[in-house]
Order: sequence, then C-alpha cells, then structure tokens
Amino acid sequence: MTRFLNVIAVSAAVEAARKIAPPPQPETVPLDLASGRILAAPVRSDTDIPGFDRSVVDGYAVRAADTVGSSEAMPAMLRCVGRVAMGEVTVALRAGPGECAYVPTGGILPDSTDAVVMVENAEPAGDMILVKKVVSFGENVLRHDEDYRKGDVMLPAGRRLSPQDTGVLAAAGCGSVPVTRKPVVGIISTGNELVPFTKVPKKGQVRDANASMLAAYLQGYGCLPRQYGIVRDEKAAFESAIVKAVAECDVVLLSGGSSKDDRDMTAGTIAAKGEVLVHGIAIAPGKPTIIGRVFGKPVFGLPGHPASAYIVLIAIVCPLLDRMIGADRPQVRTVTATLDLNVPSQRGREDYVRVKVNDGIATPVFGKSGLLNTLVASDGVIRIPAGSEGLEKGSTVEVILW
Amino acid sequence: MTRFLNVIAVSAAVEAARKIAPPPQPETVPLDLASGRILAAPVRSDTDIPGFDRSVVDGYAVRAADTVGSSEAMPAMLRCVGRVAMGEVTVALRAGPGECAYVPTGGILPDSTDAVVMVENAEPAGDMILVKKVVSFGENVLRHDEDYRKGDVMLPAGRRLSPQDTGVLAAAGCGSVPVTRKPVVGIISTGNELVPFTKVPKKGQVRDANASMLAAYLQGYGCLPRQYGIVRDEKAAFESAIVKAVAECDVVLLSGGSSKDDRDMTAGTIAAKGEVLVHGIAIAPGKPTIIGRVFGKPVFGLPGHPASAYIVLIAIVCPLLDRMIGADRPQVRTVTATLDLNVPSQRGREDYVRVKVNDGIATPVFGKSGLLNTLVASDGVIRIPAGSEGLEKGSTVEVILW
Repeated sequence: MTRFLNVIAVSAAVEAARKIAPPPQPETVPLDLASGRILAAPVRSDTDIPGFDRSVVDGYAVRAADTVGSSEAMPAMLRCVGRVAMGEVTVALRAGPGECAYVPTGGILPDSTDAVVMVENAEPAGDMILVKKVVSFGENVLRHDEDYRKGDVMLPAGRRLSPQDTGVLAAAGCGSVPVTRKPVVGIISTGNELVPFTKVPKKGQVRDANASMLAAYLQGYGCLPRQYGIVRDEKAAFESAIVKAVAECDVVLLSGGSSKDDRDMTAGTIAAKGEVLVHGIAIAPGKPTIIGRVFGKPVFGLPGHPASAYIVLIAIVCPLLDRMIGADRPQVRTVTATLDLNVPSQRGREDYVRVKVNDGIATPVFGKSGLLNTLVASDGVIRIPAGSEGLEKGSTVEVILW
Repeated sequence: MTRFLNVIAVSAAVEAARKIAPPPQPETVPLDLASGRILAAPVRSDTDIPGFDRSVVDGYAVRAADTVGSSEAMPAMLRCVGRVAMGEVTVALRAGPGECAYVPTGGILPDSTDAVVMVENAEPAGDMILVKKVVSFGENVLRHDEDYRKGDVMLPAGRRLSPQDTGVLAAAGCGSVPVTRKPVVGIISTGNELVPFTKVPKKGQVRDANASMLAAYLQGYGCLPRQYGIVRDEKAAFESAIVKAVAECDVVLLSGGSSKDDRDMTAGTIAAKGEVLVHGIAIAPGKPTIIGRVFGKPVFGLPGHPASAYIVLIAIVCPLLDRMIGADRPQVRTVTATLDLNVPSQRGREDYVRVKVNDGIATPVFGKSGLLNTLVASDGVIRIPAGSEGLEKGSTVEVILW
C-alpha cells in the first residue's frame, strides 16, 4: 500500500523534468572566467597553429638529406649560416644544401630546411657544425598548422571548458567566450521545525542544513544559487515565497520540510499557482518528490531528509540543469569501481546507495537518510536499477560522485 | 650526454618544492563561500544533533512493547492522545502504556514513547489507532545525538569542504568558517616569440596559451592566479617583473619561453636575486624545470611546451600548493583505470603519459608536447616510475585527472 497514487519511474521523472527545462541562454565572458563554463557555440581557430614550421628543440635546422649516413664516428659537416632569432623571420637566413642554421626551441625553420638536429647531437667546429646523428624529414619540427588549421572547430558547443581548453581559446584569439548563462536556482526552506544556522535550536527544532548543502552543490555545478530562507507552514507566506522566487529565478527548489503537512502544502501551492506534474517517484531514498511548474518555471519539492534531497537533486534535478546549461553530456562526475559488499535492493524502485570509494573499491555506507554523518562519510552513490534485486560483491559499478 | 648537470629525481624535486612552501595562513569566510576550501581548524558541534528523539516517518509514536504480536489480522489497539506539532515540545503530550500520538516526519517523540509505527501500518478508528505491524525499540526514530554529539569533531582540519560538509557546518552553527587562505600565484610569460591572445601572431610568433591554461587550473585548485603578461628577453625587464611578482604573490611561475636562452635568463635571474635549488628534473616531459627562491618565495621556471608545463605543474607545483593550503591529502583528483595499450618508457626518468579515460579504460594519447590538441583530447596523465621500462596493456593504473 503506497501513499502516492502516481509514483512514477525515475526515467519518467527525469523525462518530465527535462521537458520543462528552459532552453540555454547564451552570454559572453572574458577568457579568464571561461573555465568550467559550457560553450554556447563552437570555437574555430582564426589562424593556423602554429603559423610556421617550428623547432621543438634547441638545435640546427638542416635538410634531412644532408645528414644521411652521419654518426658519432662519421659526422656530416654542415656550414652554419647563422642563428634564428625568436619571434621573427630572420631576413636573408636561408640554409641551402650543405648548410644549417642554429634554431632555438620554438623558433622558425629557415627556408629550405626540413628537420632539426638537437644540440646534443651536434658539435661546432669553427663555422662548421659536425652532425653526429641522422635526422629524418620533419624530425623535431612542429609543422605549420599541425596543431590546428585556420577555420577548424577546436572546441564544440556544449563542451564544459577545461583549463587546457582555456589555453586553446587563447591560442585561437578567443578573448570573449560564448558560453551559456548560469541558471539562477532559488532555494526555499520549508518546515516549522527549522531554524537558520545562526540560531541555537530549541528542543524540537533543527538547524536548516539542506539549503546550505544544496546551494554549495549547485554553485559547483555551474549555477547561481539564491537562498530565500525558511518559510513557515502558513499558506499565505508559502505562496508569496514561491511567487517571489519564481519571478527572480530560473528554477526553484523547495527543501527542508519533511512532514506530510509540508509536502501537502508544497503540492497544494504549486497546484494552485501552476501545475503539479509528478508527485512521488519510485526512488529510494526520495519517494516524496514533487515536480511542477509555476508561471512556466520548473519547481521541485525535494524530500526533507538531507540524503534524500541530495540524491533527488543529483538523479532528477541535475538532468534538467544539464539541459538548461546546454551541456553535451551529464555534468555529474562518475568513476568506475568494484563493489566490496552485496547490496540488496527492492524490485520496482531505483535504489541509490551511498558509497565510499578508495583505490577503485566502492564500500556501501548504510545509514538513515536523516543523518548528515553518513552523507559526509560517503563519496557518492551507486544506482541499482528498478528491475534488480541487488548487486553482488565484486560487481563493477558506476559511482556518481558528489 | 645531458645538458643538465644536476637532473634530480621527481621525488627529490617534490621534496625540494615542499620544503620551501610557506605555511598555510588561516582566514575565515562566510558559510556560503566555504565549499571547496580547506579547513584550517577542526569544527566541533555546538549542540547534540538532533537535540531530541526524532521521528523519521509520518506515523504514530508508541511504546514498542505495546505492538508485540500485532499484525494485519490481529492489530493492536492504542488510544491516540493527540498530535505532535512540528518544531516545538507539545506541552502535556505524553503517551503512556496503551497510548500513542501522531507524529510527523521530523517531529519530537512524546515522553515515554520509543518507536514510531508508519501511517501505512496504522488505521484510525475513532480515537483509537489500529496498529498492524510490530515495531521494535527505536524503530523509525533518529535518536538524540545519533548524528553528532555536542563537542564532537565533525570535520577535521585539512579537509577540503564538500557541499555536504557545508550542510554539516550549518547544522553545527558554524556561520564563519576557519579556512586556509588561497595562495596568490603569479604567472609571468617569457619568450620573444609570444604575443598576447588579443593579437594576431605574425610569422614566427605564437599566442601565449600557457598563462591562460595555468591560471585556469590554479583557480580550480583553490589559488588566486595573477597574470603579469609577457616579459621580453631583456635582463632588466625580466628582473623587474620577477621582483614585482614576488613582492605581490606567494608563489611565482615563469612560463612560456621555450628556448635555451629563455631558460638561461630565468635561471640567471633567479640566481641573481635569490637561489636556484633545482635545475633539471628526471621527468618527461618537463626536464628543463627550475625550482628556486627569491626573497624567500618559491619561484618555478616551467618548461615552455604546454603539455610539459602542465605536467610539471601537476607533478611538482601542486604538492607545494597542497602544503600551502594545508590540505590533508593531495588535491589532484585521481581515478583507477585499466590501460588498453602497452606504454614503453625509458628507465631513469619518470614518464607522464597523457590518457583519455572512458568507462574505466585508459587509452594513451601520444603526441608532441608542443601540441595543444593532444592535451585537450586527454583527461589526465598516468605516471610511469623511473625504475620501470613501461606498463603493459591490462595494467591497473592511477590516472591523475586534469
């Protein structure tokens, strides 16, 4: 006997959430703020990179053909015609047959040379250079446009920019980067038992931990969390808080209240001001979750227990956020690990089990979903599909990291 | 024949770097800025959490003994004496033998009750409740101080604060969080071939990609990068840039110049203004690395190739940063994976090989260290110890993620 008449599968809830995601909005940010953001448009190179044949070592630019047969015992002798200066085309420096030129790492190869002999393999003798090792065509050279060609898509839209990508953007001259806007996510705490963290709770009261936890996670996920404090269990206050948050945010999460009264108030207010799309999901923990829409904006009623709220955030809300930020793949981080205990599960619901991960071994952290300490002791969760009765020790599992 | 007379082992270079790390400096930040920071002092709970026996379900608070033998067919009958209100001690609500009280999720258990029957397992009949299932002592109850006891160390010094930890800090009333100060890391680009990303490079020139890449990585690592632009290969300009950066930063990285002249200038300037501790490390890529100290501050000369600079940053500079931020473990992220190709290596130096990671499989991405595209195509690096001749396909490897 379930209390929810319309408990739906996790996949259906995710689909319902993703369907109401507002589309990504583009904006531009300066290069030094781009790392971690999602590209809104592909970035193309505005030049060939490098724009010239470039030495990757300190050495002597040569024609590879001139080094054929050379060795320590029988070095080739080439006349050195000069030095390449860094960062410029050294006018009139041309090394013909039987000639070479000193070139520093990163320097441009003189016309008609095609390889570089490392200084370690060469020895000056007056204005001649003894080359003690054969080099092949193109050896120790980064060819013109070997890295990127002008017009190449270097980074596709939807990609989360890594620090290396920032280097690529610099190389492409992309100082103003087209990224997607960070969704503003409102967080309303509900529940008469809650007090803000600044207060000492009396008997029967608890400090609001969920709002801070959700905000920190969302910030790391590329959102702008906005906290609306604790709303007490009174219809008018509740409605005006939701209306205000919906007006100011792209998504609103209601969290913290754990009693049936709070959930009923949440569902009732969403229904009164908009529509309830989902009320109850076949997920554990997290069954009493609400997905709705108010004035066209997604509104979630998260369960009150910290672990439940956190797991629903990751399993249901993050897929919607992925779509809002235009990410080309889920932004939750995952690792593969081996399970070191049997984990039983109940058929018909998707179970999320907290785990600690060490050296590729995932150890379940069991505990009541009202506890913070087990949440802190874990590194992430594993998902047991609704059709499964559990996972066996030794199974390979994908851990969704917090 | 090596060009560096004093190439030292990676472990010795790391030790040299860590030895000159300035000690962590404490500061406090508001709770909403604490996530991702390193705790400078342990945080203790200022109260018991929860501060009372708390129901984790909506149901009826009972004495477990009163439910013995009850079932669907033979329910126990208990007189309901009232409802617990959320967030307060309901005065005079006491359920004695043969009695129960409605309690919402999160509500306080009335005196002399010790378990909660879920509403799903109970049925009201007038002012009596039919209890259809046995509950044991403590069932569906979060005990007083079950999560944390007043004075418990909830989070130890040196811990990087996760979003969940932020929730714990809120629960502990810790609105002002003792963390370590973010090191200010100066980045000076060197090399006459470099132009800023805002310019179109002429033939022989390349845009400075390293500075942006290093800054982005450092920001993600919990530092405050400060860029000093490109310094040309002139002694006076070089010296004054280093002196200025050292005065304003906690650590200085010189990067970008790839030629021997640049490296000599770097080493010469560090030696003139302070001391060179290491010049050359048995690491590939990254051999021409310099570790020194100017006016007591650590100064690094990173190799010019992007991949080399990045790998030295991770292998050598990050361990110093870990100490500066007081982290209790390395802050680089790692995953365990299975190698899907043989990777040969040269004995006597530590090789870092870029890899792509998919579903627990690490695939080497080979390529010249001057290329950005192979760096972007990889997810991290694997380390092949100096004493090894390589790793075999099928080996379990630890991937250091970018």
